[in-house]
Amino acid sequence: MKGKGFEQGKKYSLTLKDNSVMEGVFVSETSKHVFLKLKSGYNAGFSKEKIRERKEVGSVKRQEAKLSPAKSVGGKPKIVILHTGGTIASKVDYATGAVTPRFSPEEIIGMYPELSGIARIESRLVSNIPSDDMNFHHYNLLGREISKAVKEKGLKGIILTHGTDTLHYTSAALSFALEGLPIPVVLVGSQRSSDRPSSDAALNLLSAAYFIANTKAKGVFVCMHDNVNDSACALLKGVNARKMHSTRRDAFESVNTKPFAFVDFNREKIDYKEETRSSSESFSFKPFNEKVSVGIIRSRPGLTPEELKPYEEFDGLILEGTGLGHFPIGSIDKSTEKNKEILGFIKKFASSKAACMTTQTIHGRVNLNVYSPGRILKEAGVLGHNLDMTTETAYVKLAWLLSNYDKEKARKLYHENLRGEISTRSDV
Amino acid sequence: MKGKGFEQGKKYSLTLKDNSVMEGVFVSETSKHVFLKLKSGYNAGFSKEKIRERKEVGSVKRQEAKLSPAKSVGGKPKIVILHTGGTIASKVDYATGAVTPRFSPEEIIGMYPELSGIARIESRLVSNIPSDDMNFHHYNLLGREISKAVKEKGLKGIILTHGTDTLHYTSAALSFALEGLPIPVVLVGSQRSSDRPSSDAALNLLSAAYFIANTKAKGVFVCMHDNVNDSACALLKGVNARKMHSTRRDAFESVNTKPFAFVDFNREKIDYKEETRSSSESFSFKPFNEKVSVGIIRSRPGLTPEELKPYEEFDGLILEGTGLGHFPIGSIDKSTEKNKEILGFIKKFASSKAACMTTQTIHGRVNLNVYSPGRILKEAGVLGHNLDMTTETAYVKLAWLLSNYDKEKARKLYHENLRGEISTRSDV
Repeated sequence: MKGKGFEQGKKYSLTLKDNSVMEGVFVSETSKHVFLKLKSGYNAGFSKEKIRERKEVGSVKRQEAKLSPAKSVGGKPKIVILHTGGTIASKVDYATGAVTPRFSPEEIIGMYPELSGIARIESRLVSNIPSDDMNFHHYNLLGREISKAVKEKGLKGIILTHGTDTLHYTSAALSFALEGLPIPVVLVGSQRSSDRPSSDAALNLLSAAYFIANTKAKGVFVCMHDNVNDSACALLKGVNARKMHSTRRDAFESVNTKPFAFVDFNREKIDYKEETRSSSESFSFKPFNEKVSVGIIRSRPGLTPEELKPYEEFDGLILEGTGLGHFPIGSIDKSTEKNKEILGFIKKFASSKAACMTTQTIHGRVNLNVYSPGRILKEAGVLGHNLDMTTETAYVKLAWLLSNYDKEKARKLYHENLRGEISTRSDV
Repeated sequence: MKGKGFEQGKKYSLTLKDNSVMEGVFVSETSKHVFLKLKSGYNAGFSKEKIRERKEVGSVKRQEAKLSPAKSVGGKPKIVILHTGGTIASKVDYATGAVTPRFSPEEIIGMYPELSGIARIESRLVSNIPSDDMNFHHYNLLGREISKAVKEKGLKGIILTHGTDTLHYTSAALSFALEGLPIPVVLVGSQRSSDRPSSDAALNLLSAAYFIANTKAKGVFVCMHDNVNDSACALLKGVNARKMHSTRRDAFESVNTKPFAFVDFNREKIDYKEETRSSSESFSFKPFNEKVSVGIIRSRPGLTPEELKPYEEFDGLILEGTGLGHFPIGSIDKSTEKNKEILGFIKKFASSKAACMTTQTIHGRVNLNVYSPGRILKEAGVLGHNLDMTTETAYVKLAWLLSNYDKEKARKLYHENLRGEISTRSDV
């Protein structure tokens, strides 16, 4: 595409090289891309190289951002956006249909000018790796960056852009590591890349910023679509979130408890489902010990004792059982004789280290009192009875406890509700 | 409790030794137990030993079973109930609150006299072990029993009572192993033991029988509560069912597809959500080769290459990835260097054996084309692209394919929709 730049307040019709036609109001541009606000309300980015023709098809009165200037003395509150990569910072290669990380933090901000109506935004790139490759090392890196930012004067909150695949591990990890956090830290991802018309990035990001600017809540949250209608985002506590769909924009669910709040960005409304408890804890960053080893063993029919061998020297284990928290541990039947070796392994591990039961059903509570296999495991010292943490949160919690406390204290604290990770309902 | 037996058509008030009072209409009794139909509609069983006092408090006109005599020439259809244990055959020890397997098949039938209004029932005990201890050996045992029963003259269908924890593994296993099944086989479990007032056993069992007596559908199904109101049961295809709650009575969900049908037992109504496809396949039982080894590896932040070692000599692997089907396989970042060993392992395994991707999100499709880690795995020969089977069904299917076909054929058939295990919607 040749010619001069785009103009604020103008509406354009773009004919792309693949003959598709896109129409929208100019939002912003970089040397290689232009961003339009489509009729759907989405912002979409287009590679200038791929535009064959552009027509000016109208103009719009530039609206004043209809957002509340967030309540703060002396101007808009400050929000820091820390970028870690993921789909939200990716775009589609329309030749292959594949998505690759490409946007710079500045470009992302440029795509959502509404952000400046909510807060003063500062933006930094912390890392840029697929969320699947992240681990405890990266949680520490993020924890340190957040700890530093927390000390900045007048900071109202932090947004962390993150790939969605393991976002719930990171949100749980930061929930534990950042004790007594005095501000909200909101993780935001997107299920569709920012340059696609169906992207959820805009609403997630803007809702997170609106929430931070207007809430008194503290702690770690996840802000993602609540439904597929783009009408609201849900704020989930970092310890309760779980990705429950591979493609839907409302993929994240608050497991075993209601979402913390809903943000209806278009109506400037926050609907709290849970009371904000004020905490007088002083802030401290308690990182993970990257040498601590915790595994997850998933129960299944046909599990063999040999598969447990690599975990012998681990410091902790999450046993992801079936139902109320069961494993194949050998019953009276001769056909299950070999399962007694599994019981032997668990008994030995549970008595000397920390083995904690969770359930593959995702929803519901572990109860080791109801059936005899559960009672046998509980007597062997398996932890987790009457808890309803997700496997992911349990895993991160155990690793964090073993990083920061001695074994006895860690076993005790595992059963305590430290960050809202255990629901207080008791329906078993 | 002393005194003569209970009488048909009488209503009793029982005062138990713990001073609780239960009132209901007499249903049936054994030497040690009496079963009453409570006002709630549930049948509850009481240990005669624990009854301190009984009073006759009224009588009811014995109602004719208001159930349709199922359509069949020459009287009621025949249904065989095969028992394998589980909660449905268990009762609560009220001293400890624990649940232990205790009811005989005859006692179970005795508890649900409505069954005889639906069909001629025959009942056999096949096994009685906790469902957690079941494996491919037991699937073969059940498959053989069902194959034998299928040949019985006039058999309309089979009910299999089963523990709920691994019920969905068994239903998937039988779906594959029983090819061209000419009758419906319905797995029934219960989340609360049969002697508890809140038991779901009655409705599940009666709905399964009603479905069998009145349907033309063939194949393997699961019949469990559709909601917690006791108003209807859902019939799920054996390959789509998954236990999604540790305690709720409507714990089973049809994943990525609608339930096959709903049975409203009280209104004698079956509401089909999916068409019954007639199949002209001839029936054959294709058992599992108990020597075939398939593992499940669950991806997570912090997964180490050492944990993969035990699977080197396995015949097949399910890789339960995150999101669209991703694993930590090492990106450009140095901090993820060790993950390249995970990629090395997967590459080697996928090229010489069968490695199949599923997703931890439970819902949604695997898509290995969108992100570069997915594309790398797909190019390495990892199977599963564009499929939406549950991890449990994928595991059982792969084991069954490797039991019955050579490696190349098994790899090919893994991507084919053999029993309705792959949904035909395509929303990625």
